[in-house]
Amino acid sequence: MYIRIDLEGKDPIYTQFKNQIIAGIARGDLKPGESLPSVRAMAADIGINLHTVNKAYQQLKQEGFILIHRQKGVVVNPDGVEPADEDYLSNLKQTLHPLIAEAVCRSVSEEKFLSMCKELFVEFPDGKDDR
Amino acid sequence: MYIRIDLEGKDPIYTQFKNQIIAGIARGDLKPGESLPSVRAMAADIGINLHTVNKAYQQLKQEGFILIHRQKGVVVNPDGVEPADEDYLSNLKQTLHPLIAEAVCRSVSEEKFLSMCKELFVEFPDGKDDR
Repeated sequence: MYIRIDLEGKDPIYTQFKNQIIAGIARGDLKPGESLPSVRAMAADIGINLHTVNKAYQQLKQEGFILIHRQKGVVVNPDGVEPADEDYLSNLKQTLHPLIAEAVCRSVSEEKFLSMCKELFVEFPDGKDDR
Repeated sequence: MYIRIDLEGKDPIYTQFKNQIIAGIARGDLKPGESLPSVRAMAADIGINLHTVNKAYQQLKQEGFILIHRQKGVVVNPDGVEPADEDYLSNLKQTLHPLIAEAVCRSVSEEKFLSMCKELFVEFPDGKDDR
């Protein structure tokens, strides 16, 4: 999978990196059980700091996207990512609330907002079905 | 308008405060041209630090939600908030992308995600029409 870091981007590099791993899993480019490069190899590959990769990997591990084995190294969680629970959904709602409030202030219609979301879902075909 | 700050919340206090002003404008509780309490009065009202209110007010001003007059004090932008431009929409898309990727990983269907958004829009009835 190709990782693209925007050094001028608004998000910190570890966040960009982390989000791209998550997007890779969501697209199915990264399959459950698939190996990821070690911290050292990944950092060298994409030309970013070791600590940046490490921070992202640690968060991805904590959130259940990957496992970090002493021997097998870094792998995409072979059991798949934990499905949404009440906590996750309530957090997601809390995150979407200010985005929607601002969109309304800026005269973005509900229809327009929903169609933007739909466009984004196109990237993740599996997300179209209730899995 | 009633401002509710959650000291245990995941978002910093200035962000919570700022988001509630934006939500107030989106709901129409805060009308264009309406006065807001001064930094000092607002800080005393909701029991938070002056600098926290000031930081939120400065960002709200920069983003065009409010004006800060030397004489008239703080008012909701009388011309209304600048409607969405390409930059804003592309930023919004960039913000939604990782939220949707994670939702897909967590087996949230597109339908479920869209229905959560729709529920949030109910709070902002004006947002339902293309204004």
